[in-house]
Amino acid sequence: MSLSSVESRWPEHLAPAKELDNLLRCGICFDYFNIAMIIPQCSHNYCSLCIRKSLSYKAQCPTCCVAATEPDLRNNRILDDLVKTFDSARSHLFQAVMDSSSSPPAA
Amino acid sequence: MSLSSVESRWPEHLAPAKELDNLLRCGICFDYFNIAMIIPQCSHNYCSLCIRKSLSYKAQCPTCCVAATEPDLRNNRILDDLVKTFDSARSHLFQAVMDSSSSPPAA
Ligand SMILES: [Zn+2]
Ligand SMILES: [Zn+2]
Ligand SMILES: [Zn+2]
Ligand SMILES: [Zn+2]
Repeated sequence: MSLSSVESRWPEHLAPAKELDNLLRCGICFDYFNIAMIIPQCSHNYCSLCIRKSLSYKAQCPTCCVAATEPDLRNNRILDDLVKTFDSARSHLFQAVMDSSSSPPAA
Repeated sequence: MSLSSVESRWPEHLAPAKELDNLLRCGICFDYFNIAMIIPQCSHNYCSLCIRKSLSYKAQCPTCCVAATEPDLRNNRILDDLVKTFDSARSHLFQAVMDSSSSPPAA
């Protein structure tokens, strides 16, 4: 996933969209959720692979330290849908903002 | 919550943002999630009040009909954060798009 490659390109205009972007990222790998899993005890979310690896080292949520094991994990599929849709919306937004701010290049 | 009042105002420009908007709505009341709860068995989400009321009539997920009862419900807090952030982002986006499309009024 190279979705994160444009992370630094959010125009100032779109600061709140950048916040949305942050919410859709895994706290372990900092990339967008990839097969998002929720820890039902604490409501924190991670990529499936990231949290399984983490729990195999230490049986707790990496954010809030609540006790957790692999069988506790549940899919949080709406996050996968949100990541997909957000990625598409972002391309369109950039286009819209670029269009709106496109003044003729300085000579 | 009157957040839905601008629903019909999405400029065509922002169709994918409208899709994001749809994802953040409860399938029972069609408003934005208000204290989002996940049914861990099937990963479907609803407002806390909406799903509790629904389960009291029929002990199943209204979308996929998997058996479910109130004690199964878990908070899906990231959706509450996403609703809040999306609402703020939307205002900014509208501004950006209105700015971009503001041609002088036709005489
Ligand atoms: Zn991850
Ligand atoms: Zn946690
Ligand atoms: Zn609802
Ligand atoms: Zn369901």
